Order: sequence, then C-alpha cells, then structure tokens
Amino acid sequence: MKENFPCDIRQLPTPSLLLEREVMRANIQRMAERMGALNCNLRPHVKTHKSLQVLADVEKGGNTAGITVSTLQEAEYFFEGGYSNILYGVGLTPNKVEAVANLISRGCSLTVVTDNIAAINLLGERARVLGIELPVLIELDVDGHRSGVPPMGEELIDVARAIQETSGLTLQGVMTHAGGSYDCDSIDDIRHCAQQERDLAVSAAQAIRAEGLSCQVVSIGSTPTALMSNNLDGVTEIRPGVYTFLDLFQVGLGVAQLSDIAISVLTTVIGHQEEKGWVIVDAGWMAMSRDRGTEKQRLDQGYGVVCDLEGEPLMDVIMGKANQEHGIIMVRNGAAPLKPCDFPVGTMLRILPNHACATSGQYEHYCVLEGSSCTNFWRRTRGW
Amino acid sequence: MKENFPCDIRQLPTPSLLLEREVMRANIQRMAERMGALNCNLRPHVKTHKSLQVLADVEKGGNTAGITVSTLQEAEYFFEGGYSNILYGVGLTPNKVEAVANLISRGCSLTVVTDNIAAINLLGERARVLGIELPVLIELDVDGHRSGVPPMGEELIDVARAIQETSGLTLQGVMTHAGGSYDCDSIDDIRHCAQQERDLAVSAAQAIRAEGLSCQVVSIGSTPTALMSNNLDGVTEIRPGVYTFLDLFQVGLGVAQLSDIAISVLTTVIGHQEEKGWVIVDAGWMAMSRDRGTEKQRLDQGYGVVCDLEGEPLMDVIMGKANQEHGIIMVRNGAAPLKPCDFPVGTMLRILPNHACATSGQYEHYCVLEGSSCTNFWRRTRGW
Repeated sequence: MKENFPCDIRQLPTPSLLLEREVMRANIQRMAERMGALNCNLRPHVKTHKSLQVLADVEKGGNTAGITVSTLQEAEYFFEGGYSNILYGVGLTPNKVEAVANLISRGCSLTVVTDNIAAINLLGERARVLGIELPVLIELDVDGHRSGVPPMGEELIDVARAIQETSGLTLQGVMTHAGGSYDCDSIDDIRHCAQQERDLAVSAAQAIRAEGLSCQVVSIGSTPTALMSNNLDGVTEIRPGVYTFLDLFQVGLGVAQLSDIAISVLTTVIGHQEEKGWVIVDAGWMAMSRDRGTEKQRLDQGYGVVCDLEGEPLMDVIMGKANQEHGIIMVRNGAAPLKPCDFPVGTMLRILPNHACATSGQYEHYCVLEGSSCTNFWRRTRGW
Repeated sequence: MKENFPCDIRQLPTPSLLLEREVMRANIQRMAERMGALNCNLRPHVKTHKSLQVLADVEKGGNTAGITVSTLQEAEYFFEGGYSNILYGVGLTPNKVEAVANLISRGCSLTVVTDNIAAINLLGERARVLGIELPVLIELDVDGHRSGVPPMGEELIDVARAIQETSGLTLQGVMTHAGGSYDCDSIDDIRHCAQQERDLAVSAAQAIRAEGLSCQVVSIGSTPTALMSNNLDGVTEIRPGVYTFLDLFQVGLGVAQLSDIAISVLTTVIGHQEEKGWVIVDAGWMAMSRDRGTEKQRLDQGYGVVCDLEGEPLMDVIMGKANQEHGIIMVRNGAAPLKPCDFPVGTMLRILPNHACATSGQYEHYCVLEGSSCTNFWRRTRGW
C-alpha cells in the first residue's frame, strides 16, 4: 500500500476502488438540496459506503438527522466514530438483543425494527432480562417488496398495540423499505411509487395515532424515490443510501447519468484474445462483485462499463465476462471486436459498477481521487 | 465475537460462515488419494479458502507441492505464514513486478504466468531494472475459456523462445486454466474435458522441448477435471481449489453430493410473509454473495439450499431472493408455500452456497465446527 499522498492514479495497485470525491460531493449536495426543498430530514443509509470519512462529507451536505445501518457491526463502527443516533433497518432477531443492549448501555440511541407479534414477544422478553427499553419502528409493506405489515387494517393496529403494551419496548413509529421503484420503467413510474410509499406510510401513522397510540416517526425512502419525490408531507425522515456513489443500475432507472457515478474499479490490461476481440484485465468478479443488476434492465451493462484512465466511458465497451481475478472486456453484442493495439498490455482502465453497495463491499478502502491525484485511502468496515 | 471455545452453534452471531472440519477433511482426503493413485502432485489453489489453517489441513492430506494464489496479497499472506513455493496464477502485469520482486528478494520462490510477447517484453524490462530473475509459465488456451496461447503452432514456440531469450525471465513450463468443464452436462463430458486438457498441455510441453527449449512444469486442472481425470501422465502438478469446500455448482456438475459441502451460512428467521409463503432471514446477498452460478444449470438453487441447524437439507426449500441483509426463503417453484409455524421467529437455519469462493470472500473468518460445537474462528485474508 502506498502511503505517500498525493500520488498519481497510475501508481495505485490494480485492482483498486476509486472514489471521485467531487462527484460524490455533488451527489450529496443534490440530495441535501432536494430534502431542503421538500422540508424533510435525511437519515442516510450508510450500508453503501460503510465509511466514517464518506459520512463526514455526507454530514457537511446538511439536512441529516442520524443514520441508518444494515448491520450491528456498522452500528458499532459508526457509534465508535461519534454517531449516536442510529436506526438499525433490518428486522431485529432475538439473538441480537444483547448486542443492541450493549450499544444502548454505552449511550447509543439505537432504534430497531420489527413487523410481527412473535418477534415483539421475544424481543420484549430479552429486553426485560437485559434491563433495557428498546425503541421500535413497525416495518410496513407498501409494495409487496419483502417484509412488513400491510399499511392499513387490523394487523397494523394489533402490532402497534402489542409493542405499546410490551414492557421493554417503546413504539416510535413506522418505516418502509419500498423496493418497488427498482422495477420501474420510467421516471413517472418512480414518481408514482414514491407517492404511494409516502401516502401509505403517512396514512398508517395516522391510523395508529387514531387509536391513541404514539407514532412520532414516519421513515421511508430509497435513492430513486427520494430523488423523484415531489411531496414528503407527513414524512419525518428519508433513508437513501446509494445516492452518494450512484451506479449503473441507477443510471438504468433514469435517476442518474454515467458522469454521476463516483466509484470505479481501476484495472490493468493483462493480454488479449485477438480472434475473439477480447481484452483481458486483472479485475474479475472479486473486484467488481457478482452483482449483475443491469441484466434485467433495458441495457445490460455486463459486469460494468469500461472507461479510460480519465474516467471517460468508452462507447459500448463493457466487461462482458468475469472470473475470480480476470475480467473479459468486449464490445457490446454486434459491434466491432476490440483490437489489441487500442488496449496494449499494461494499459490502465476504469470500470463503472452495476451496484455501488456490492462493489464497495469487496474492498478494504477507497482510493480517494481529487483531480487526477489520489489524496488518501479511506477505510471501510464490513462483517456482522 | 465469542472467544470461549468450544461454544454451541446457537451462540454464534448471525449471519456467520460455518466450516465443518470433518467434511472438509474428507474432501481433502479424496483429492489427495486420487492424486496419489494418478501419481501427480497437487498444487492446491488457495483462492477458495485464503486461510492458513485450512491450508494446514490440506497439507496434512498429503501429495502437495507448493500452492497456487490468485492475488499477490495471497502470496504475501501465505509466504508470511511459512509457504515459499508459490505460483501466482493470473497473467502478470508490469505494474506488479515490483511487488513480485519484493517477495522474491525475501526468499519466496514465486512463479508467474503470461501468454503474450508484449507482456514478456515489459516484464523482462521491469525484472532487469529490479535485478531479479522471474520464473515464468506460459498460459495455454485449451478450450477457449479465457486467456492463453493456442497449445500448438507457431505462436506457442514464439512465446516460449521470447521468454527464453529475454534476460530477467526464465522459462519454467506451461499451465492451463481450463474452464470448459464448468459448462459440462455429464461426467463423461467432464472426463473428456480432463483428457483434452491433459493431452493438449502435455503435447504443448513436448513441442517446446522439441525446439530445444526448457519446459519442466506441466500444470493443469480444476476441481471437476481433477476429480474425474483417469490419466495425468506427463502432468507435473494439478491445481484444484474449490474441492476443499465444494458447493452447489459442483453438485450441479455431478462431482459432489450436498453432504460433501463443508461450508454454510448460519442465519436466523426475522419474520414471515404468510400469504406468499415466504420466510425472511437475516442473511442476504452480503452474507451469501451475489453468485448465482446454478442459475444456468439444470436445477437453479436460488441463492442457496436451506438446511436445518444440524445441516440436513430441507426438501425443495431455497433462498429464492436476496437483498443486502435480507434473504427470502421459499419453496422451489410450484411446491406448497412455507408456513410460519414451521419456521418460528428466531429459528436458526443453514444455507449451502452456490459458489464457495464467492461466499467465503464475504467473511473475515470461518466458524469451525467439530461435531455440533464451534471450536475456533479461522481468519481468512482478502484484498489485493
């Protein structure tokens, strides 16, 4: 690992994960301004970047109130780093209450999530044994995406009342993990999802309040819906994550441009298979992740879009195949094969990823680019 | 992290990566015995496990002579751990020669790979500047899988002669990364691939020797071809990796049974979507990896096959969908939906992975199971 900063990008080992700080800051700014305009707080999801230094830039963007984590390991890392207002966004299992209690006892204001009475009973039992009071959000299912209780009807009220009546638990509000926008074909569709998510979450909160129960928090959101919402009235916070880096999947949805993608994988040409028009590079799926999120979108981007060393995308050149430490660069179906003379051995390229959360997860650190120099390595955390 | 061993498997946090040591040892034994019978050395690929403790068990199995690595980071880690006979199996790029020279200068016997004259010229130049002599294998393309020179004809001899004549490089032999067996439909097909790989590698070596050039090493192999080969005459070493753990992809190929898979992901039930017949668990794609290698096999296993806590597979129950930290457990298409009462909140399950290399790569350590107890955490390395 080089430790002499700034260094030229060409001195970095390959593969490396590059983070263009100015591009990221512009993404942060765009989201913060939208939230300002819609008068809503941001509780950014840190599962995309898992980095204290990235979060420091997110905080500078403004309009934030706490963070969202996807693992208790993230909660631990960010709490140790000075953040104490944390929502753990995955339904809590009974075997994690002890770790939650440990964080709470050290001063962390940690809120958890559930969607069923069986869990409520078990979590309450553990909370009482451990002598803690657990703040809880009810997860709502607003689009059939995954988990959650229906946002209207008897079950919602039963769950809310069960939390209220369970000693050791405190009902804080409702939250959604809407994923419907990820299947959308147009911006209008995404706007429709965003509106539906907001409307159902707000009406669920009203239904709970109408029963005389407390429901302070109405927490929704994902990057596409956050970027496309026109109305967040009644929503207290929104939790996008991938907007900091963006990726090819978000470009495919239409909520970002290629030039908005802040991370890429630096790689070096190893050789060629001239007859096939292939260029072989030293970044495979271990460097890109196995995520092929664009496969079912209109434009399949393979394992990623190939850019030159300056980050300029090369027309229709993608990583079409990948093994563990080899990538095969080729032209999208039908176009002319690549020539070795255009990509000599040793040439460095950059690959834009399908999914920023998955690709970042393959690395220990970001190589932070400011201008054409790498100015720092920013560590990221991992595990559970 | 628990540090009091042995501990009951139910005390482990979820998700965790389990390694059944006895199952692994049986896999190691099977391969070592086959190599003994075929009178061939094993140069095991450590990219699957990336762990010194796993390698110690592999070594105990016998018939090994050195190791294969997929990154220079692995070379560094295993060299520091006492292994000095190392083949770096990915075509070397000029920007990595300095790291290679560093290892060689410290006493590591590191061999590298290339398949083209442009690389040979650049590597020779760097080797001379750094004052090292670089042992080189020529990569052969025996099945159109990825990289390599054709195993017969002018180009092979040109490449061999170029290495021989380049000061700073020493020609050691030939190697293949045959991947053809991964597309096979039957054991007969795999046997055919294995025979073709062996025949072409041996004849390439003979052609090089016929020119008066040196070619001591004939290095081939992958797990399916190593397990199915009947003849390795003329081959000096074979380099399987995934055989230590095995996985659903290898089961799909027919070279292993479900009960041979040594690793699985421990997970806990969060909740249910009863109408859909879904069980939601706390292991998503971050815990399983995004690898969906069985998708194109006869039996698509989703993100993995679900087992009970004892490791017994549940008939037709798979992880059908996954988000970052959520898995959706369901019955394979068409069968009856799962009932919450069969998988109460808090139930622990184990998931067998599509691809051992990819799933292991998501973890810091293995939770080593001996009997029904976890007896140790074995660290693994990562990065580049």
